[in-house]
Amino acid sequence: MGAKVNEDLLSERKKCEFNVEELTNYLDGGAKATENRRKLERKVLSTKGLIDNVPEEFLSHKEKYENAVRKAVLFYKAMKDAEDPNLSEQERANTTYRSLLPSAVFKDNSPFTLHVAMFIPAILGHADEEQKKYWMNRASKMEIIGTYAQTELGHGTFIRGLETTATYDPKTEEFVMHSPTLTSYKWWPGSLAHTANYCVVMAHLYSQGKSCGIQPFIIQLRDEETHMPLPGIKLGEIGAKLGFNTVNNGFLGFENHRIPRNRMLMKNAQVLKDGTFRKSPNSKLTYGTMVYVRVVIVNGMANQLARAVTIAVRYSAVRRQSELKPEKSSNSKLTYGTMVYVRVVIVNAMANQLARAVTIAVRYSAVRRQSELKPDAGEPQILDFVTQQHKLFIAIASSHAFSLTAKWLTRMYYKVTADLEKGNMDELPELHAIACCLKAVTSWDTSAMTERCRTSCGGHGYMLSSNLPQIYGLVTAAVTYEGENTVLMLQTARSLVKAWEQAAAGKPLSPTMSYLSEKIDKKQKWDNSVDGIIKGFRRVATGKVASAVASMKKYIKRGLDPEDAWNMSSVQLVAASEAHCRAFILSTYKAEVDRTTGSLSEPLRRLLNELVQLYAIYWTLEKLGDLLLYTSISENDIRELQSTYEDLLGRIRPNAVGLVDAFDFSDQILNSTLGAYDGRVYERLMEEALKSPLNAEPVNQSFHKYLKPFMQGKL
Amino acid sequence: MGAKVNEDLLSERKKCEFNVEELTNYLDGGAKATENRRKLERKVLSTKGLIDNVPEEFLSHKEKYENAVRKAVLFYKAMKDAEDPNLSEQERANTTYRSLLPSAVFKDNSPFTLHVAMFIPAILGHADEEQKKYWMNRASKMEIIGTYAQTELGHGTFIRGLETTATYDPKTEEFVMHSPTLTSYKWWPGSLAHTANYCVVMAHLYSQGKSCGIQPFIIQLRDEETHMPLPGIKLGEIGAKLGFNTVNNGFLGFENHRIPRNRMLMKNAQVLKDGTFRKSPNSKLTYGTMVYVRVVIVNGMANQLARAVTIAVRYSAVRRQSELKPEKSSNSKLTYGTMVYVRVVIVNAMANQLARAVTIAVRYSAVRRQSELKPDAGEPQILDFVTQQHKLFIAIASSHAFSLTAKWLTRMYYKVTADLEKGNMDELPELHAIACCLKAVTSWDTSAMTERCRTSCGGHGYMLSSNLPQIYGLVTAAVTYEGENTVLMLQTARSLVKAWEQAAAGKPLSPTMSYLSEKIDKKQKWDNSVDGIIKGFRRVATGKVASAVASMKKYIKRGLDPEDAWNMSSVQLVAASEAHCRAFILSTYKAEVDRTTGSLSEPLRRLLNELVQLYAIYWTLEKLGDLLLYTSISENDIRELQSTYEDLLGRIRPNAVGLVDAFDFSDQILNSTLGAYDGRVYERLMEEALKSPLNAEPVNQSFHKYLKPFMQGKL
Repeated sequence: MGAKVNEDLLSERKKCEFNVEELTNYLDGGAKATENRRKLERKVLSTKGLIDNVPEEFLSHKEKYENAVRKAVLFYKAMKDAEDPNLSEQERANTTYRSLLPSAVFKDNSPFTLHVAMFIPAILGHADEEQKKYWMNRASKMEIIGTYAQTELGHGTFIRGLETTATYDPKTEEFVMHSPTLTSYKWWPGSLAHTANYCVVMAHLYSQGKSCGIQPFIIQLRDEETHMPLPGIKLGEIGAKLGFNTVNNGFLGFENHRIPRNRMLMKNAQVLKDGTFRKSPNSKLTYGTMVYVRVVIVNGMANQLARAVTIAVRYSAVRRQSELKPEKSSNSKLTYGTMVYVRVVIVNAMANQLARAVTIAVRYSAVRRQSELKPDAGEPQILDFVTQQHKLFIAIASSHAFSLTAKWLTRMYYKVTADLEKGNMDELPELHAIACCLKAVTSWDTSAMTERCRTSCGGHGYMLSSNLPQIYGLVTAAVTYEGENTVLMLQTARSLVKAWEQAAAGKPLSPTMSYLSEKIDKKQKWDNSVDGIIKGFRRVATGKVASAVASMKKYIKRGLDPEDAWNMSSVQLVAASEAHCRAFILSTYKAEVDRTTGSLSEPLRRLLNELVQLYAIYWTLEKLGDLLLYTSISENDIRELQSTYEDLLGRIRPNAVGLVDAFDFSDQILNSTLGAYDGRVYERLMEEALKSPLNAEPVNQSFHKYLKPFMQGKL
Repeated sequence: MGAKVNEDLLSERKKCEFNVEELTNYLDGGAKATENRRKLERKVLSTKGLIDNVPEEFLSHKEKYENAVRKAVLFYKAMKDAEDPNLSEQERANTTYRSLLPSAVFKDNSPFTLHVAMFIPAILGHADEEQKKYWMNRASKMEIIGTYAQTELGHGTFIRGLETTATYDPKTEEFVMHSPTLTSYKWWPGSLAHTANYCVVMAHLYSQGKSCGIQPFIIQLRDEETHMPLPGIKLGEIGAKLGFNTVNNGFLGFENHRIPRNRMLMKNAQVLKDGTFRKSPNSKLTYGTMVYVRVVIVNGMANQLARAVTIAVRYSAVRRQSELKPEKSSNSKLTYGTMVYVRVVIVNAMANQLARAVTIAVRYSAVRRQSELKPDAGEPQILDFVTQQHKLFIAIASSHAFSLTAKWLTRMYYKVTADLEKGNMDELPELHAIACCLKAVTSWDTSAMTERCRTSCGGHGYMLSSNLPQIYGLVTAAVTYEGENTVLMLQTARSLVKAWEQAAAGKPLSPTMSYLSEKIDKKQKWDNSVDGIIKGFRRVATGKVASAVASMKKYIKRGLDPEDAWNMSSVQLVAASEAHCRAFILSTYKAEVDRTTGSLSEPLRRLLNELVQLYAIYWTLEKLGDLLLYTSISENDIRELQSTYEDLLGRIRPNAVGLVDAFDFSDQILNSTLGAYDGRVYERLMEEALKSPLNAEPVNQSFHKYLKPFMQGKL
């Protein structure tokens, strides 16, 4: 079993028509960024003890956790040691933007994630100056390990429903933390079960007999010396999950647990000694904090603790004025900034994970030979089947599309946040509306395409050693966390309906929705170019919003309340959101490629444009019904698009391996028997299988205990 | 934590407009069948030791296997003891048709499955009379445990590519079994790793220097006393997978391992002492045997070993004449019978598993309260959100549709097999064509809808204690096993193209494809009834076949070989197959409901018809593009259908819990914290979490080893 590269992959790489390194640099944001990223990856991954001898999937649930804690400590130090003090802020950001370093160490994420991703940002967002100084000192040195507890067993997305109470007792100047019901137990926070000893807890505050809304409290969970849970604090882990099994998700209940008054984080609201409740100007409620970094879990960036602290601090500086509020409350514009940021991170994470999945699937498809196309011509690479190309190439294009969309969104986010500082929040609602549907659509698409990558590898994709099932576990989680997708789609729909009404009233619309004011003219000539397709998708979105509004009106006419009419039409409203989102992704993808590829060499620029075209036609053919309803696309146009699509698959085919090579994932980050650079698929499958502890002995004890007596009729 | 039923579920059950028991009986095939099924389930599930104290998901990979062997032995005895000798063959079949008993015991299936599902059928199908007598005697008493090895590391669906060799040595009258390459290692067979001591192995036979095709050999793998692998036999397990982790999938390699001549199974072909190779009349190749029961794994039926032996024997009697051959070989009609049978079992398994998933999701949606629809009206049951109804009710209808389609297919299968015995195999190719696409479409739909059920439960669906991730693991496996779905869709497409050409030549078509000869007339008035929709879907299928054929002709005209033209058009060909399949499922669903519900009470009959209508409209709205292209459906028709769809959701809403109650899964079979009959969702989530071994101690050892020194800066 030599280590030479598979012949088929070698010849694929010879066929490639563009410079792979050039594309890698383009994706990274420059050659320097590629170099820095690689340097960081090399340094960290050379740390001893970070790579498992026995793969995680063979361990028990408990062993997985213990092994993850062991590695988390090592990884933290390795990341700190690898820090390059000469890099600027922007360079650091570039280095980690596309890096999935933690994936090389934790198939299922680190138990420290929440400390940086949630605990520190919560302190930065909610603590007053004195509190911040004290707690940030301890937290940033990792003297304490914290997490953030908001979601309860009975309440997730709907924050106002939270049941945990914090009742102020002026006699002792303490808050009494209590979990009045089983459903009020905090449930899900990572690190909470056995790792963290501190926690920011969101609870319903009562003082002087009155409700004072949801407020944040910093609470010591465990003794610092013995790690025993403090009296009145019930802690445990919530059990095994589809993914994230090493992040140590836990539950937390209080039995009239008392904390001093200064453990309420008082930046945005205060309880005075006598129990008087006060809000800071410009901020009504302060929960929901910093959900933004929750998501970095997927991106993997959060595991890079040292780096993430920087991000959190920088972020906190930026959002000084944008206090947090529940999305639906009256003064809700101020919360949008945070929400948007979270969703940018998710969209980017989806792009990166999809790139990982499709790298594995394309390389395997180049190595795997099966079946026959022509009699006696030998078994072809399965990548030569057009149905296989149809499954895979759209995933490459989607990864590019999502990544460029995330970059656009990041720029918008910083612009809008800067405007906010000047007191201008005009563009926030629009940005929030687009971020909602983007999070939903990209996580749905990425989940579906990751599964398509997996099943395109046949049975071997079902093996955990392929890593495809685990990648799916990570991406599908994004469908339900940080705002359930359907709820988010309906938030975008609400903005669309509003915009539609504004347009009807002749008012101007914000840029991403301005097309809604254009009249739908079915006679307008259809055009098969990408720009024509973008126009088409916009007309679809307009048409769908119009028909959802008409449907609501019909229901109201029938006597339904507006809320019920909204509910009855909600399937259509989700469809309208989706159409809007697809139009947006497609137009952004196209515009960003146009804007950023001018200086690239001809073959690469052509290829990137072919991917844009592939993406546009793929979705045209997927959404034909909508286009036929709302545009003048004809059968002839469709036939032509189908044929162009088939041509495009053929043109991309010789560059497929080059395209995934350009994502430049190291074998450790891919962590896959099927996807390694050298294509030694079968050797690796066998090598990984041999690591199974079941293979350490030729006869398992269960033979003597059960099988033998059974076969001999003695049981 | 009392054991009373959740109030919301109680009131749902009061609202229900039909008799739940009546529907259960209908689904089971009569009240008597329901009674027998329940009796069997009660008896077996009262066996001590079958239910785990520590749920499987917390164990290590090795412990999972050992625990599964322990339970497999108990379960086998329990099933045997529960056998009711007074039941007829048909009654026995009815008892197990909808039972998912093994799911109550093995979340991830039994390590004995392959003995009955593959080993015994392989003996029955391939052994000559003398061999059969000897081996069946040992196998049916479970004196030996066997499995079936066909798939290799390098070859799955394409059987002719198998590399394992069996070379006859006339000097010693032995076969030399050999694995010439790494890719020739057998890979995947359940039980193979550490459980089975015998195995039927498919290998490429060479005798007298000539290739004699793929032939079956029965090979002892392990010493019966010590269980040690025999010399020249390399055994091991293949590692962890997305599912099926307790079935003990293994690999097997040979190093010039010698076996006596009589270990070749000689029913269909023989090697004489001198090495002369002979085939039995009417049978050329004999591999691929009995793949049919492989699939029973999903159905769970195979775990019921005693029962499954009966099935296998009965099946073997039925298929006496239908020898097996590779699907593409010249005399391939004879293999179709077996293939069809497998696929019937899969379609039925999909129906049962989808029923399980939607039961969990609907009950949880009735218990879960979240968000708000109207201000100050309290938090609604999430089942009241129309978007939630849209996600779930189609899964109920699909389960019914697949189950009835499987029943139709079973009847056709028996009819066609009976015809075969009379030498008439006219209907076989048609049946084979429909079974191919049905296996593919139902496994795709079931996978997608199971995931939709899971994500509709929000974060809690991500918990393994919900059992939804595991159900997904079982159903998604069907996408790639027993014929990869895309390959199967293209087989159906081949039949469709053939039929299309026959129609063009004025020849008559077989019943399921006869509609292909009707001219597409876009002016034919569209009709929103279910029958109108069926007609519409048939016109779509016709149109898609026509356009795929036109596309192939275009490519041939451009100078491509027919094979390349086929490959270039294969995305369209798959779409044509799908349209054909959807038309078929819909028309069969409608016809079977019409045929079988005449004697039901009015409310139930109405409800079942509403589900048919829901199913028809759901797919109309999903596939609008096709319908707009190939029929005269108008914007008005679509608006009306959308409105009817929303009405239907409202009409089904009060009966949703009743509909899933009627599937009549015991809590043990559901095995879900979210789906139990009493709706004690939150209590069960907590109870299951507390079973995690991590929760057995308040402080995990990793604190002392890693966390404490780390936080104190000593690492």
